[in-house]
Amino acid sequence: MQSSWVLAIRSVRPSRRLASTLTTRATCLSVPAPRRLFHISSPRPQDINPAIEDMAPKAPKFEIKTPKGTRDWSGTDMVLREKIFNTITSVFKRHGGVTIDTPVFELKEILAGKYGEDSKLIYDLADQGGELCSLRYDLTVPFARFLAMNKDISQIKRYHIAKVYRRDQPAVKKGRMREFYQCDFDIAGLYDPMIPDAEIIRIINEVFEGLGWQGKYTIKLNSRKILDGIFQVCGVPEASIRPISSAVDKLDKMPWEDVRKEMVEEKGLAPEVADKIGKYVVLKGKRELLEQLQRDEELAANPSMQQGFADMDLLFTYLDAFNAGHSVSFDLSLARGLDYYTGVIYEVVTEGSAPKVSAASAEASAEKSKKKKGKAGEDEDRSDDPTVGIGSVAAGGRYDNLVGMFSGKTQVPCVGISFGIDRIFSIMRANQAKKERKNEVDVFVMAFGGGKDFTGLLKERSEIAARLWDANIKAEFLYKVKPKLQNQFKAAEANGVPFALILGEDELAQGKIKIKEMGLPEDHPLKEGELIDLKNLAREVQVRIDRKKQLDAIVEQAEGLRVVGGIKGEDIKVEQQAKEGEVTPKGEEVKAEN
Amino acid sequence: MQSSWVLAIRSVRPSRRLASTLTTRATCLSVPAPRRLFHISSPRPQDINPAIEDMAPKAPKFEIKTPKGTRDWSGTDMVLREKIFNTITSVFKRHGGVTIDTPVFELKEILAGKYGEDSKLIYDLADQGGELCSLRYDLTVPFARFLAMNKDISQIKRYHIAKVYRRDQPAVKKGRMREFYQCDFDIAGLYDPMIPDAEIIRIINEVFEGLGWQGKYTIKLNSRKILDGIFQVCGVPEASIRPISSAVDKLDKMPWEDVRKEMVEEKGLAPEVADKIGKYVVLKGKRELLEQLQRDEELAANPSMQQGFADMDLLFTYLDAFNAGHSVSFDLSLARGLDYYTGVIYEVVTEGSAPKVSAASAEASAEKSKKKKGKAGEDEDRSDDPTVGIGSVAAGGRYDNLVGMFSGKTQVPCVGISFGIDRIFSIMRANQAKKERKNEVDVFVMAFGGGKDFTGLLKERSEIAARLWDANIKAEFLYKVKPKLQNQFKAAEANGVPFALILGEDELAQGKIKIKEMGLPEDHPLKEGELIDLKNLAREVQVRIDRKKQLDAIVEQAEGLRVVGGIKGEDIKVEQQAKEGEVTPKGEEVKAEN
Repeated sequence: MQSSWVLAIRSVRPSRRLASTLTTRATCLSVPAPRRLFHISSPRPQDINPAIEDMAPKAPKFEIKTPKGTRDWSGTDMVLREKIFNTITSVFKRHGGVTIDTPVFELKEILAGKYGEDSKLIYDLADQGGELCSLRYDLTVPFARFLAMNKDISQIKRYHIAKVYRRDQPAVKKGRMREFYQCDFDIAGLYDPMIPDAEIIRIINEVFEGLGWQGKYTIKLNSRKILDGIFQVCGVPEASIRPISSAVDKLDKMPWEDVRKEMVEEKGLAPEVADKIGKYVVLKGKRELLEQLQRDEELAANPSMQQGFADMDLLFTYLDAFNAGHSVSFDLSLARGLDYYTGVIYEVVTEGSAPKVSAASAEASAEKSKKKKGKAGEDEDRSDDPTVGIGSVAAGGRYDNLVGMFSGKTQVPCVGISFGIDRIFSIMRANQAKKERKNEVDVFVMAFGGGKDFTGLLKERSEIAARLWDANIKAEFLYKVKPKLQNQFKAAEANGVPFALILGEDELAQGKIKIKEMGLPEDHPLKEGELIDLKNLAREVQVRIDRKKQLDAIVEQAEGLRVVGGIKGEDIKVEQQAKEGEVTPKGEEVKAEN
Repeated sequence: MQSSWVLAIRSVRPSRRLASTLTTRATCLSVPAPRRLFHISSPRPQDINPAIEDMAPKAPKFEIKTPKGTRDWSGTDMVLREKIFNTITSVFKRHGGVTIDTPVFELKEILAGKYGEDSKLIYDLADQGGELCSLRYDLTVPFARFLAMNKDISQIKRYHIAKVYRRDQPAVKKGRMREFYQCDFDIAGLYDPMIPDAEIIRIINEVFEGLGWQGKYTIKLNSRKILDGIFQVCGVPEASIRPISSAVDKLDKMPWEDVRKEMVEEKGLAPEVADKIGKYVVLKGKRELLEQLQRDEELAANPSMQQGFADMDLLFTYLDAFNAGHSVSFDLSLARGLDYYTGVIYEVVTEGSAPKVSAASAEASAEKSKKKKGKAGEDEDRSDDPTVGIGSVAAGGRYDNLVGMFSGKTQVPCVGISFGIDRIFSIMRANQAKKERKNEVDVFVMAFGGGKDFTGLLKERSEIAARLWDANIKAEFLYKVKPKLQNQFKAAEANGVPFALILGEDELAQGKIKIKEMGLPEDHPLKEGELIDLKNLAREVQVRIDRKKQLDAIVEQAEGLRVVGGIKGEDIKVEQQAKEGEVTPKGEEVKAEN
């Protein structure tokens, strides 16, 4: 009987016959009549399964939510996030990246001693017998562990897109989450110096350009060797270098005066040493800043500095060759928190990265609002706190010693970058102009007909849908035996489906079906649709889908990348327009802009 | 200076000039001479960063490994797994699926009371203050929680591909892991009956056909309503229905005699009731089995049975329309473990799903080998244990009450399927004939030249690579200032890169570059490569990549899908060739085949 149905649709048959066949089929069902009836009419939930009423559970007593600092992703948010992933992945593959996947938890010992003070933010698994484990804090330490375990891999360009976990104070709206995605690209192996380091910066450019940010981002660049050299030359005691470095790293959140205060009052640095540091760390620029530093005889005599100069000089040369230097800002205030960096470090910022006001100046007003809100304070989401910025949207650097922390003798030098997807998402979401579709369906299969003899053509719709699926065409239809045409159009419009395939008994009898492009203007010649041959169904539909996609692409190009029209670049963009060769110190007026 | 380099490559310049420019650039570097030297020559690790030697850490005292039952994924394993994901995702999208993402951990209360006895396998997070959380055990409960939280979503086709966690005894080689991927597609909402249920089965077919299994799988199908009806008719006390159902579910692992023993001796069922059940649960077939059952007057009088009959009758009708019935086996032994199913249930099996020997018959020999191996026993990986099969490769069913467990009154009926990616992977991996490439790079950029004046053309290679990247062409080159041609070819061959772009000073001087397809036979006219214009670089390269991809696709098609040539179908395939309408009981000889 099934084969006669297929025949009926594929060849010319009187339409009455189609209807009667379905009736015959229905009569064949050897189920008690009343049961069959509710299967044809639209059922209430308790009809589908009487258990729903009998067993209907009580609402639970606890609040139904996701854990603090985590969220669900769905709808157009999910579509946008997937687009971001796809853009980044295609850049990684363009550079020969291969992907790996590691477990979401690691042995506790693997993570121990890698994150300094931040170790308190690590999530541990409960001790349920067996090994003690913790959720991964980043993708870098698992990668180093992976390299240490796989000694046959001495060179790899690997990317890894996965979630990491930090028990930090969340600011959900700004993309600061406890569960968040990292998107890492690292080049491991022993190569001639600075070539991979430069390619990482080229990759950063390709990612943000691919996302349509059109240069509206700044790649801050520095070298641990230069920074340590400066500290040595200024007279920072060896033991204080890392703490003083941490203080310098706060220059993106507070003015120099506050940082100096922290150095002198909290960390006991001599005021004249702090002042000397202050002369250097406010500098930023491009290659000419490097040349200026190289002319400084005191710096030029320091061995760490000499190495840093050589690295940066090569790096700028290679960035030129890669045409990747335009968004780079050589920024002596960049220090990065983690201990494991050994060479170049970078951090990508954009509008919103820095907090609106510095923590110190906001202290008074915060104190007031805290009192107003009662005791919530500490435990609250900090999305609306002006002292919390989005932070950097990507960060990384060279870490030549981390793999050796696991493997002992076998060192594998590495350089890499990590993109903060949730932060990138929160920026792009806020500036999104175009509405994303929720699904990608191209065709909605409908039945047209009325009167009491209208069967709903469910079998025909099912068969047409199956033929489209066979041809890899994305298609849907309403899960209803007798749908109203109006409701079918409503469902198609709700998902923005571009084409309707409309089955009518008369057209089927002629071996035809109507295809209609949705949303055409009233005066469009094809507004009422076209009849196409059922024989050539898949081909006729595919041709129209392809044509529409081409047209849409042209329109989108013409409209420009509106998605990110709202993102503004950082101050470095202004500097670029200024005369080259001039070193601009970070002024107060620039600060105010953030 | 950088712009002169670009010019040099894009226009015609004497090749000597290129070399001298690089030398000039190098001389410009205002770093102490000895430092510059090691940057040009090939460095040892301690040259890159003296810290490597000074700070070289000691090897840690604990074993570097991933936690028990977890593994890293990399290389060609990862490539194959990504292919499986892509195939499945494209099927889901073809049916209008939208994807969601939920946190990897849920509030402990959300998971409580959902998994019966298996709750002991849930991973808890340590209590570090704040909420108590557990790692998700599946994607179904989080989906139900999501629907309960989002009351505006009354209808959704959602897919979710993510990791889930179970503290079970692992068998890594068979894809039974503690951390493993699930790949779920669920249709939620109130629709006319059985249409979504049938589409799920169509999706199962599309997924396994898409993976190239060519019908070598069986979709076991049953209904909780029919099963419960049988138990009622046979006289199973209401309270024993679920435990007896669990015993029946073991028929894929042990013969009926052992199951009967469990029912009578362990679960206290009257022997005559067990025997009556035994008559039914060994039956399997297709629509004709349903018709046979419907002719049984005792069964036909049972209300749960009547509902089950009506459901299955409609389901078979819709499966015909979707052309999706060919791999379906209506199997009365299928019961499924989880309590939340309320209607149709399915499970997909293939060769290797069932264990090689039943647990009972293996007891004696296992006892022996345990003694031999000492006390390892319980805690060992069970990959080589013949009483452990791969299990089902996909499973699912209808669950109409689960959402109500969170939302109280608001019921959202659901039906869905979950694909076990790690098991599918382990089968496809074992049968894989074609070697996958590790990365997708299409072009390797090389320098050709010799003698002491050979510069290595690093800047030129960098610029060529950057132009290819600009054109979205996947390209790599060796991170070496002066690479040997032989080593460049070796690197390209190791990754199976199809094209080499070879830069030579003489050719550059003429504005040309050589492109060479890798692996051509000795007598091929293009074996030595072709000279192409640098002006049209990207276009000339892209044309050749496209042409090669088309050719490769034709060859692959001609060779057939060798990847899965080794997968054998289950016994149902033999039955299909037998006369239709005949109900085949599960015989012992069929058992032996597994």
